[in-house]
Amino acid sequence: MVNITLPDGSIRSFESQVTPMEVAKDISEGLARNVISALVNDQQVEVTTPITEDSQLTLLTWNDKLGKKAFWHSSAHLLAQAILEFFPDAKLTIGPAIDNGFYYDVDFGDTPLSEKDFEKIEKKMLENAKKKSEFNLYPVSKAEALEMYKDNPFKTELIENLEDGEITFCSHDNFTDLCRGGHIPNTSIVKAVKILNAAGAYWRGDEKNKQLTRVYGISFPKQKELKEYLHNLEEAKKRDHRKIGKELGIFTFSEKVGAGLPLWLPKGAALRRKLENFLMRAQQKAGYEMVVTPHIGGKELYITSGHYEKYGEDSFRPITTPNEGEEFMLKPMNCPHHCEIYKSSQWSYRDLPKRFAEFGTVYRYEQSGELHGLTRVRGFTQDDAHIFCTPDQLLEEFKKVIDLVLYVFGSLGFEDFSTQISLRDQENKEKYIGSDEDWDKAENAIKQAVEDKGLKAVVEYGEAAFYGPKLDFMVKDALGRSWQLGTIQVDYNLPKRFDLTYIGSDGEKHRPVMIHRAPFGSLERFIAILIENTAGEFPMWLTPEQFIILPISDKYLEYSKKVLNSIENSDICGLIDSRAEKTGRKIRDAEVGKIPYMLIVGEKEEESNTVSVRKHGEGDLGTFTIEEFKSRLENEMRV
Amino acid sequence: MVNITLPDGSIRSFESQVTPMEVAKDISEGLARNVISALVNDQQVEVTTPITEDSQLTLLTWNDKLGKKAFWHSSAHLLAQAILEFFPDAKLTIGPAIDNGFYYDVDFGDTPLSEKDFEKIEKKMLENAKKKSEFNLYPVSKAEALEMYKDNPFKTELIENLEDGEITFCSHDNFTDLCRGGHIPNTSIVKAVKILNAAGAYWRGDEKNKQLTRVYGISFPKQKELKEYLHNLEEAKKRDHRKIGKELGIFTFSEKVGAGLPLWLPKGAALRRKLENFLMRAQQKAGYEMVVTPHIGGKELYITSGHYEKYGEDSFRPITTPNEGEEFMLKPMNCPHHCEIYKSSQWSYRDLPKRFAEFGTVYRYEQSGELHGLTRVRGFTQDDAHIFCTPDQLLEEFKKVIDLVLYVFGSLGFEDFSTQISLRDQENKEKYIGSDEDWDKAENAIKQAVEDKGLKAVVEYGEAAFYGPKLDFMVKDALGRSWQLGTIQVDYNLPKRFDLTYIGSDGEKHRPVMIHRAPFGSLERFIAILIENTAGEFPMWLTPEQFIILPISDKYLEYSKKVLNSIENSDICGLIDSRAEKTGRKIRDAEVGKIPYMLIVGEKEEESNTVSVRKHGEGDLGTFTIEEFKSRLENEMRV
Repeated sequence: MVNITLPDGSIRSFESQVTPMEVAKDISEGLARNVISALVNDQQVEVTTPITEDSQLTLLTWNDKLGKKAFWHSSAHLLAQAILEFFPDAKLTIGPAIDNGFYYDVDFGDTPLSEKDFEKIEKKMLENAKKKSEFNLYPVSKAEALEMYKDNPFKTELIENLEDGEITFCSHDNFTDLCRGGHIPNTSIVKAVKILNAAGAYWRGDEKNKQLTRVYGISFPKQKELKEYLHNLEEAKKRDHRKIGKELGIFTFSEKVGAGLPLWLPKGAALRRKLENFLMRAQQKAGYEMVVTPHIGGKELYITSGHYEKYGEDSFRPITTPNEGEEFMLKPMNCPHHCEIYKSSQWSYRDLPKRFAEFGTVYRYEQSGELHGLTRVRGFTQDDAHIFCTPDQLLEEFKKVIDLVLYVFGSLGFEDFSTQISLRDQENKEKYIGSDEDWDKAENAIKQAVEDKGLKAVVEYGEAAFYGPKLDFMVKDALGRSWQLGTIQVDYNLPKRFDLTYIGSDGEKHRPVMIHRAPFGSLERFIAILIENTAGEFPMWLTPEQFIILPISDKYLEYSKKVLNSIENSDICGLIDSRAEKTGRKIRDAEVGKIPYMLIVGEKEEESNTVSVRKHGEGDLGTFTIEEFKSRLENEMRV
Repeated sequence: MVNITLPDGSIRSFESQVTPMEVAKDISEGLARNVISALVNDQQVEVTTPITEDSQLTLLTWNDKLGKKAFWHSSAHLLAQAILEFFPDAKLTIGPAIDNGFYYDVDFGDTPLSEKDFEKIEKKMLENAKKKSEFNLYPVSKAEALEMYKDNPFKTELIENLEDGEITFCSHDNFTDLCRGGHIPNTSIVKAVKILNAAGAYWRGDEKNKQLTRVYGISFPKQKELKEYLHNLEEAKKRDHRKIGKELGIFTFSEKVGAGLPLWLPKGAALRRKLENFLMRAQQKAGYEMVVTPHIGGKELYITSGHYEKYGEDSFRPITTPNEGEEFMLKPMNCPHHCEIYKSSQWSYRDLPKRFAEFGTVYRYEQSGELHGLTRVRGFTQDDAHIFCTPDQLLEEFKKVIDLVLYVFGSLGFEDFSTQISLRDQENKEKYIGSDEDWDKAENAIKQAVEDKGLKAVVEYGEAAFYGPKLDFMVKDALGRSWQLGTIQVDYNLPKRFDLTYIGSDGEKHRPVMIHRAPFGSLERFIAILIENTAGEFPMWLTPEQFIILPISDKYLEYSKKVLNSIENSDICGLIDSRAEKTGRKIRDAEVGKIPYMLIVGEKEEESNTVSVRKHGEGDLGTFTIEEFKSRLENEMRV
C-alpha cells in the first residue's frame, strides 16, 4: 500500500507503487492533461517517476512556478538538440531554467553563433518538439558518463565532481544530456519558442576560465502567450524608468557624485514633493507627527541600536573627525534617531501611541554591480514612521497602518496587490533577536490584523526581519509585474535596546512596542515603479507641469503670461513655449514631454479671453474661457 | 605746520602740534563735549595725545564702537581701583574692554570675592568716577615697572615680555596700572556701572596656570542706558531660543546622536516645512526650479570643487567603503552637486539663467566648545540656490535676488536691516582665487546692484569669500541685536573648475557666471533668530498649531472633534485638550504653550454650533460661529 497525501490534506491509497501522472488520472482526466511536473516530498520529479512509499504529492501545471521551471528546463534540452544539429562541433556545458525562460552555455569553438541563426534554431526546436518524444531519465556509471563526454572538458569537469551512483542522463528523440531530471511528460506541449539573445559568459562565472556563449530563450505552451510576452518585453523596455526618467528630466546620475546617488532634476523634485505632501496630509489625519533628524549619528547610537554590527564595516564606514574618538555614521535607518526623540520626553500611557514620521534619507553601500536605476541605489528617502504604543494598542495600530497603506495604493491607482506575512524560520530561531514570547505576540498580532482586515496573505516562514515579523505589500503594475512596496514591521527589540518606557496606569514604567512602516517603501523605488506603471503619464495631481501655453507668435507672449498667472497656484504649474517655432512643432514637443494640456493662443483667443485646448494623447478639445479651463483642471487635480 | 585730514576728506592746518581734543574744539564746542577717544592714522590714542605730523584723524564718541571700547577700558581701571580699595592684597592681571563691557582678571588670594561685594564695588566706582580724574599715560623704564610690580608675578610676567622703551603706565586718582592707553578724557563721564558676574578663568587661558577670578562689568554714560541694557539682558535670557525651543517642543539634542546635530520635534518640523513652502512659492514666482541632491558626494567631486582642500581633513573626514579607492564626503556645501546638475545638459544662452534651488542639508565639523543651540551647529539646512547666468545677465539677476531677499525679510517682519558689501582685501589679493578682471567685474556688479536698488551698504574690504565678493544682510531683532542672515555671492571660479559652458548666440561655448544665495542663511539659524525675535510668538501662518479646543467636559468631545474637522486644512492645524482638567487649567496651559486661539466649547456652544474664542495674550473675544472663526483665522494666515 502507498498512501499519497495531496496539498488539500486528502489521502489516496494505491495498492503498489504509483507515478504522479497515474495519481492525476485517478483524480480526473482533465487534471492529467494539464499536469506537467510534480513535487514528491518537496523534491521535483518527472511525472513518470514511481512513488514507492507513503508521500506528500503536489501536481504541477504551467500555472505553477515549478511547472514553468520543468517546462523551461525541458526546452533547454530542445535548444541544445537543435544547436547540435546545426553546430555538430559545439560543446555543451550547462542549461538551466531561469525566472523567465532558460539558457544554455555553449562553446561554439571556431563556428560562432550569429543572430541570423536564431530563427532556424527556433524552427528546428518546434519541429523536433512536434515529434512528441518523451524525456527518459536513467542512471549511468561514472565511467560510462566520462566515456560519453571524453571530448567535452566542461561536462567532464562536472562529472568528475559527482559521485558514482548519483549520475543520470536524460534522452529524448536523438538527444542525450547529463541531467538531474525535472522534465515535462513529452516535447509536444512546447508550442512556441523564442531565442532572445546570446551573450558572453565565462565557464563557471570565473573570468579566468574560457568564455562561452550563453544562449537565452523562452518557450510557451501557446503561441499567443509568447506574443503577449514579447509585447510586454517591448513595453517594459519603453517603460524602463531609466529611459523615461532621462527623457522627462526626472533624475540623472553623475560620475563625480557617485553611482547609485541620484540627482533629482526639477520635475523629479516636484514629483517627490507632491508625493510627500500627499502622504503628509494622509498621515496628519491619521495622527502622525512629522519630525526631522540629521543624516548622521554618533557611532554609539548605532552600537546601541545594533546597526553598527550590521552596517559598521560592510557599508559606508564610520566618519572620523579631527577629534580622536568622535566618530559618526551615515544613517542606514531612521529608527535609532526616532527612538532618541521618543526618549527626549517621559510619556504616559495616555500620550500613546506616538507616531513619528519622517521622509528620512538613508545611505547603504551596495556593490556597484548591483545598482539599478532608482530601484537599487546607495542613498534613498524612506517614507518612514515609527509608532510607539502599548502592547494593548498593537493590534489596533497595526490595522490602522494597513488602512493607510491601502488608502495610499488606492489613491495612486495600484488596485491589484497581494500581501505576504513574513514570519520567523521556526527551525532557526537563533537567527533572530528577542524572546519567543515577544515573537509569538508580534506574529499573532500581524495574523490577527490581516484576518480582521479580510486580506488574503501568503505566509512565508524565514522571511521576517532579524528584529521582528512583518507584513509586505506587493503591487502588480500595468504589465502584470509584481513589485514589493509597502512594509509594516513589529519590533519588541529596539524599545529594549534603547530602554524606552512609558508610565502605565499603575504608575509604573512599562516597555512600549514599536511599529516600523513605509507605505511607499522609498520615494526612489516608488517613483521608479510609478514611472514604469504609467509609462511617465502620471495622474494629473502628480504631474510636475499640468499645462503648457503655446503662443502662435511672439505677439501673444504678453497674453500668454496673463493666462499663466491666472491659472497657476501652489498646486498647479504651467509653462510657456516662447520659442520661435511653428505651432505644429511646439505641439509635437509638448506631446513628447507628456504635458497633459496644451493651450494654444493667438489673436482670436486674446480677443475673447479664451484658450484653445488640446489634451495629450486625445487631441483638440475646443475653446475654453480661462475660468472654464481652470475649473476643469482643478477638478482633475483631486487625488 | 600740522595738517589734519578728517574722515570727510576736509583738512585742517595747525601751526604746531595739536591734540585730538583741540581739533574737536576747533570744529565745535558741541563736538568737543562728546569726543571721548580718537584714531590717529588708524591707531587709537588718548584725546590729549599730541599729533606732531600730518595725520588722518577720526574723533570718536560713545556712539562709535571704538568710543565704547575706550569707555569700557577706562571703566576697567575704575573697577581695579575699587577692588584694591576693598581687597588690598588682591593681585591685578589684565583688564580689557570686550564687545559688551569689560572684565578684570584678579587673583583674590585668600579673600575671595562674593556676589555680596558687587554692590559696594559699584558704589565705590561711581564715587571715584565723580572725582573727574584724568587718565595720565606716561612711559616707564622696564626696571621701574618690574620694581613697581615686584609682588605681582602676573604683571611681572607681562613686563618681562615687553621691550624697554615701550612700557607705559596710566594713572588716575590714586590708582596706577600697567597700560597701553586708549582712555576717555576723565572718569566723570562714567555715570552708571554694573558688575555682571564673576567666573573662574585661568591665567593666560591655560588650565595648567593658576585660576583667577574674572570680574565682568558694564558701564554707561547715562543711568537710563544701563537700565535699558539690563532689561534687554533679562529679555534676551527669556527669549533664548534654546530655552523657548525646549519649552515649545521645537527641537532637542541627544548625546548619542551627537552635539550640534538637532533633532526637530513635531512643532519644529512643522515650522521648517512652513518656511520651506513659503520660500518655495516665492522662488517659483521668481523662476527658480527645485532640485534634490544626496548628502554625500565622491571625493573627486570635492577635489574638483576645491572643497576637499578646505574641508577634507579639518572637518568630517572622508567616508571609506569596503571597496578601496571608493571614498565619499559628507557635503559641506551644495554648490558642487548643483554644478553637476547644470552639467547634465548642454544649455544655450536662451535657456539661461538657470536657477537651481534646494533645501540642502550640509555638514561641517565644529569643535564642540563652539557649538551653540541652533546658531552654531554641525549639520544645517541651507535655503540654497545657485543661479547660472551669462555675464550680461549678472547685474539684472543680482538685483532680482535682492528683491527676493527683501520680500522674505518683509514677510517675516524683519523691517530693520542693514547690508554689507564684502570685497577683496586689495593688499592681499593672493588669498583669493580667480583673475583680477573677474573680481573687478563681480565687485562692480554688486556695487551697481546695491546702488540701483537704493540700499545703503557698508563696504568692507577683506570680507569676501575666497571665491568671490558678496552682499550680506544683517537684520536687527526686537532687542536691537544685529544678526547676519541672507547672503548673495558672485562666483567666477566654480564654473571654471567644473568647466561649465553654454552655447552663445555666436554658436560658441562660453563660461556662465554663478550666484550663490540664501535669504534665510540656514533654517537652523533663521529659526533661532525668529524664536528670539518673537519670543516664540510666531506670525500666525508660521505657528505650528493655530488653535486648541477646550471642551469643558468629556460630554463635548464629539462636538470638539466636529469643530476640529471643520476648521483644519492643509495649512491650519488645531488640537483638542481632552484631559480631565478644569477649564481654567486648560486655558493656563494653552497660554504657556503660546497657542494663538483657544476655543472653549460646552452645552451652549454645541447647541448653537458656535465656539467661545479666547486669544493668547488678549483674552476673551466672544462667541463666533465656526464659519466666522474659520474665516477670521484664514485672513490672519495670509503672509
